[in-house]
Amino acid sequence: MAPIKDSVHDYISLDPLAEALVDTPAFQRLRHIKQLSTVRLVYPSANHTRFEHSLGVYHLADRALTHLEIEDDRCEHVRAAALLHDIGHGPYGHQTEDLIYRHTGRDHDEITDLLKPDRPRPSDERTVGEVLETHGIDRDRVAALVRGEGELGQVVSGELDVDRMDYLVRDAHHSGVPYGTIDHGRLLRALGFVNGELVLEAGNVQTAESLLLARALMNGTVYRHHVSRIAGAMLERACEQLVDDDAGPSIEHFRRLSDHDLLVALREHVPALGRRIERRRLYKRAVWIGIESVPAGIMAFDRSEERDAERAIAEQAGVPETEVIVDIPPRPQIKESATRVVVDGVVQRLEDASELVGALRAAERAQWRLGVYAPEASVDSVREAAIDQFGLAVTK
Amino acid sequence: MAPIKDSVHDYISLDPLAEALVDTPAFQRLRHIKQLSTVRLVYPSANHTRFEHSLGVYHLADRALTHLEIEDDRCEHVRAAALLHDIGHGPYGHQTEDLIYRHTGRDHDEITDLLKPDRPRPSDERTVGEVLETHGIDRDRVAALVRGEGELGQVVSGELDVDRMDYLVRDAHHSGVPYGTIDHGRLLRALGFVNGELVLEAGNVQTAESLLLARALMNGTVYRHHVSRIAGAMLERACEQLVDDDAGPSIEHFRRLSDHDLLVALREHVPALGRRIERRRLYKRAVWIGIESVPAGIMAFDRSEERDAERAIAEQAGVPETEVIVDIPPRPQIKESATRVVVDGVVQRLEDASELVGALRAAERAQWRLGVYAPEASVDSVREAAIDQFGLAVTK
Amino acid sequence: MAPIKDSVHDYISLDPLAEALVDTPAFQRLRHIKQLSTVRLVYPSANHTRFEHSLGVYHLADRALTHLEIEDDRCEHVRAAALLHDIGHGPYGHQTEDLIYRHTGRDHDEITDLLKPDRPRPSDERTVGEVLETHGIDRDRVAALVRGEGELGQVVSGELDVDRMDYLVRDAHHSGVPYGTIDHGRLLRALGFVNGELVLEAGNVQTAESLLLARALMNGTVYRHHVSRIAGAMLERACEQLVDDDAGPSIEHFRRLSDHDLLVALREHVPALGRRIERRRLYKRAVWIGIESVPAGIMAFDRSEERDAERAIAEQAGVPETEVIVDIPPRPQIKESATRVVVDGVVQRLEDASELVGALRAAERAQWRLGVYAPEASVDSVREAAIDQFGLAVTK
Amino acid sequence: MAPIKDSVHDYISLDPLAEALVDTPAFQRLRHIKQLSTVRLVYPSANHTRFEHSLGVYHLADRALTHLEIEDDRCEHVRAAALLHDIGHGPYGHQTEDLIYRHTGRDHDEITDLLKPDRPRPSDERTVGEVLETHGIDRDRVAALVRGEGELGQVVSGELDVDRMDYLVRDAHHSGVPYGTIDHGRLLRALGFVNGELVLEAGNVQTAESLLLARALMNGTVYRHHVSRIAGAMLERACEQLVDDDAGPSIEHFRRLSDHDLLVALREHVPALGRRIERRRLYKRAVWIGIESVPAGIMAFDRSEERDAERAIAEQAGVPETEVIVDIPPRPQIKESATRVVVDGVVQRLEDASELVGALRAAERAQWRLGVYAPEASVDSVREAAIDQFGLAVTK
Repeated sequence: MAPIKDSVHDYISLDPLAEALVDTPAFQRLRHIKQLSTVRLVYPSANHTRFEHSLGVYHLADRALTHLEIEDDRCEHVRAAALLHDIGHGPYGHQTEDLIYRHTGRDHDEITDLLKPDRPRPSDERTVGEVLETHGIDRDRVAALVRGEGELGQVVSGELDVDRMDYLVRDAHHSGVPYGTIDHGRLLRALGFVNGELVLEAGNVQTAESLLLARALMNGTVYRHHVSRIAGAMLERACEQLVDDDAGPSIEHFRRLSDHDLLVALREHVPALGRRIERRRLYKRAVWIGIESVPAGIMAFDRSEERDAERAIAEQAGVPETEVIVDIPPRPQIKESATRVVVDGVVQRLEDASELVGALRAAERAQWRLGVYAPEASVDSVREAAIDQFGLAVTK
Repeated sequence: MAPIKDSVHDYISLDPLAEALVDTPAFQRLRHIKQLSTVRLVYPSANHTRFEHSLGVYHLADRALTHLEIEDDRCEHVRAAALLHDIGHGPYGHQTEDLIYRHTGRDHDEITDLLKPDRPRPSDERTVGEVLETHGIDRDRVAALVRGEGELGQVVSGELDVDRMDYLVRDAHHSGVPYGTIDHGRLLRALGFVNGELVLEAGNVQTAESLLLARALMNGTVYRHHVSRIAGAMLERACEQLVDDDAGPSIEHFRRLSDHDLLVALREHVPALGRRIERRRLYKRAVWIGIESVPAGIMAFDRSEERDAERAIAEQAGVPETEVIVDIPPRPQIKESATRVVVDGVVQRLEDASELVGALRAAERAQWRLGVYAPEASVDSVREAAIDQFGLAVTK
Repeated sequence: MAPIKDSVHDYISLDPLAEALVDTPAFQRLRHIKQLSTVRLVYPSANHTRFEHSLGVYHLADRALTHLEIEDDRCEHVRAAALLHDIGHGPYGHQTEDLIYRHTGRDHDEITDLLKPDRPRPSDERTVGEVLETHGIDRDRVAALVRGEGELGQVVSGELDVDRMDYLVRDAHHSGVPYGTIDHGRLLRALGFVNGELVLEAGNVQTAESLLLARALMNGTVYRHHVSRIAGAMLERACEQLVDDDAGPSIEHFRRLSDHDLLVALREHVPALGRRIERRRLYKRAVWIGIESVPAGIMAFDRSEERDAERAIAEQAGVPETEVIVDIPPRPQIKESATRVVVDGVVQRLEDASELVGALRAAERAQWRLGVYAPEASVDSVREAAIDQFGLAVTK
Repeated sequence: MAPIKDSVHDYISLDPLAEALVDTPAFQRLRHIKQLSTVRLVYPSANHTRFEHSLGVYHLADRALTHLEIEDDRCEHVRAAALLHDIGHGPYGHQTEDLIYRHTGRDHDEITDLLKPDRPRPSDERTVGEVLETHGIDRDRVAALVRGEGELGQVVSGELDVDRMDYLVRDAHHSGVPYGTIDHGRLLRALGFVNGELVLEAGNVQTAESLLLARALMNGTVYRHHVSRIAGAMLERACEQLVDDDAGPSIEHFRRLSDHDLLVALREHVPALGRRIERRRLYKRAVWIGIESVPAGIMAFDRSEERDAERAIAEQAGVPETEVIVDIPPRPQIKESATRVVVDGVVQRLEDASELVGALRAAERAQWRLGVYAPEASVDSVREAAIDQFGLAVTK
């Protein structure tokens, strides 16, 4: 097969196993899952998909294996895992992750069931499981790599994984926001193993920091832009209604939808929110407050408590329940702080080797916001009700 | 409103009229129409849409007006026309253009009816026509500009229009194929009017040639890649069935669908082809021959004669009619050959000023191919039947 | 005049004053002063010069004035200052700055004497001062702007100046190191004045941080790369010898040399070091220690004390004095920490608004190194002597 | 050694032989030879050198060998030849090529004498010849490869060589002119051998054309820009005077100078022209006419006849001889027309497979210009004299 032209890595050559995997329905479906879900409502050119991202991750995994000088049958398994690492995503990726988890107990990186050879498929197609079997690949090893298990699992999913090396650069290229343009060539060359731990070799504290900083800047500017968050919360709420609708898809059906299937399903079953999302007529911020203003009990809300709060606020504000969305992100975390770097011959966690980690943690905390969203017309009444219900000291 | 970040032009600032137009359903729909329809099946990162392309064309129109030193109320009209120039496209853009034309007699650049203020819309949205009216814009002038009429219509739609200046660069950026990276800064600076004709000022024969060459190289590599052509022909055929299906959408409904609506509609009403397109299980080339091998009568086929040929070939090959697609592109043309360039003080057509035009014409002719496509399993029988039906001298 | 094509800003259009200034000998000389002096010995494609950088700064100053909505005669002065801000640099820019200052008491941003109309020049050329006079420009105002004085002086030289917006992106483009790729479009749009202070408007703490982070990453990776520092220290030492040489150029002559004049002069007057620099046969690190290991007295050394130390180390090590170079950088500073940002309606210094500033300060401190360099053959003996002379606790 | 960061190819890893070659004086000298000589007077950011270009050619040669699946000891020879292919260039590269050839009979790609191990060098450096010997490399084979001899010589120097693949992209990156941005990844993957001839494999006529077109567009816009040609002609004339000057360098010394040595030598020995070049006070075009207006006899002039004409024109115009420069470029040629491409299983020359070649030939011919240059003040009198002396029918 001819190599594939990619906007980020130029040409990507596939091994025969990868070629066959790419042709499966489960992988082709990724053409229809956008990498950045609702971010495109803020950055209109960010329409890239998990399909080309997965090809990019495959490509970087292959390069990482070369630099790590690994040459045995682990290579095929790692490359397959890199290629398949996102097939467990539901429509709109991370946006539906919580909902699916609440209903099924499965995270997007738990793909064991998707690798079974006998999944339903048209007679002239092959499932991922069948392809793996034909090529003598152990599907449990692949699933474990996707979960980040084992030495090489860290390359696929961990603080230094090729996943983020690809998505930062790709998101920068397609959104036009330059902050994600990291030096992945340097990162790949600095990878090594010390006692089974994936590390950056000596002299690379700053290389590690650059990855961290790129993600922090992209977080604030792109990934957590408030417009994208509002649209995402609306989508999540609409999906809850869709899944609860008896005429709607089952959760198992739901999690295999593509983005476009979901948009059409929403328009049919949840028309008000569906059309708003499709046409970008978004709710506005009624409340938008920092972590220090939020009572501890509220920080700990699970989704059902959020729903209760939405109902109570709606009732008090005199608006339909669907016109109040409470959006409480998890406490900020910096996964990359655990990146291991060799300093003076000793493996250290990045948070111990770099002053920046603590500062970024504080910065993330300072950027954190609880949001309550409502249609423009009811923003004022919803704000008042929310302040009351949450016992907020916010006056503005 | 904050300026919009764009992957190609960095920041795009909108005037108040443009802001209001962007918020209409007709414009938001462009988020869901891909710029390059089926090309993404070959170049997986080419997922950009007519939404950001239209913003880019708006931006370049504004810059062109500055360089042309136009400052009166024509500016607002030209910018509005640039922004709206693609709202007449059906789903999958050019791919459904012929079909819509055969049923309605309307081309995609005929947007008069879409500018009527009283088009159906939800109560809380405004139509394009209403927005234009509010801002005192003459919608007939806008529609005329989109058709390329008048002096400034040439800036919106003509051999030197800002449409192609945007799409060449944008398609290059998102596909990763560099050939389209023209120097639009230079082109814009070279624009001028001589006797009401838009020209490139003296010293710019090569600037004009570069535009021509970029398009020729993108044609061969991207726009007319055979895989994209096959997928496009399958899509077109599937759409014909969809529109002919009594349970399917009316043509008026059809032309306002988004890409994702179409994919879902096809899966429901034309499931075999629909799924093939969605999953990229494409037909293969049974026949692929150059212009010199095609009898003149066949070159002149209209779509209904193509359909007859498909039926006859299918019957002879013993396969269902839907498994044969005949794809006869129009004779190659080079619209840019009419570009006017000032040479030695005289306005000349580029084809008279440049030897390259003739050569590109010959090259386009040499690249032209008639295709007959069929599922892999029936390629051989379809080839034989097609050779016979068309009376081709092809033996291979 | 046709606009100038630039690798970073595409096209740069000059006003008539700027055109005339570009044609002066003082400005043309900048073609022969590399932007990054010895960095090219590490990043071979970093050969860009202060000529195109100055054009870029002019261009960004012009855009800043537009966004700040300034339209009176200050514009011409600011643009002229932006264009001329680097004409005071000696050969190899910052590398000869200290030496020139020690001899003349003048910093590179003190250009008053260079703006005098009657400077020596061939009869068919005009000086910068003459050009300014012809165009009715007040040269004292220009010199003050270059020193960063006054409201608009902050745009030319300050924490938020267009100088660094240009050089970060340009250095990234030409070196290939992506970290400097800031979003200058966003920075320019966020500029404003509050009570005569240049600030970033509300919502831009992260925009300010991004500038800071870009510079921090470029510092570590590019600007202070140890190979560049060694070459720079060798160059500085060689220049001291050159200026001290009675047959060499006077300091006034020296500070107007170009890079190539300097290389040739060094080869003639300081042949050993000169040839080493030209052919990249660099000294190696005999000592390379962090700030916590350096006795406070040594941190405070001025250049003549450094020279004394070099002599003492050389004597003890039994090598010629020119084979020991002591390189003690100033204490790390983060000028950008004073950037003013509007937060909740109040102007704050970035260091008060962002946790990152403190962390970067700590990171800069952690990266700081005192170096002692010597030819490879004498590294060991020099190391021993230096440890002894400086009373270091270093054993390795 | 760490890989080298490059602005075009990201990271370039060197084999041990290449590392040692890079450290030789002959190779380090390339840091001081600009790739585009006088082009930087038009495109100010085009300051890249033959040093990084040579590294890039080495890198592409290595990739070409991989795609061609060559694995024996030819690889080291080819990579060495790629690295060293430009060490034979005099100062300012092609600009001094004719002059050196007239005096020595040696072209820049004739590097045999530079590979002799016993060339003069400081005691602590090694010559290229010594390095080759140490690594067991046959220096005659390397020299032959640089001359383009043998099967693999075509990869180093031929119609499809990696030299032009690097310089087109590099010149585009550093000048900012996009036309040279070819798809070298695709070209490298398409290389193959048929009967000992380097060819592009089937399906690549357009790939070949894209290379040709990129060079044609760069020729007109960059390489042969009239300002660069004037500066180049002035430089060449100044070098003639320098070499003829008894106090100046011998031709053998001259050809080993760096760009900066030459600038300083010119200022000393040919001060008028030297200063003009350094400060960009260039002659203007007194005559600038197309090929159809030039008498055949004049087209055939060698340099001494050009000199005679300059003298005669100067005398008639009453100006010093050095104020007239006659610049007659060779007849236009398109070397790439001989590129071999596989079409329908047969190896064809590109000029037979593509209509574009003929058109480009005509376009090159149409762009060809004879120039006569003089200082602005004497342009008119020189024009008149030149028209008279050359018997031109030019009246304007």
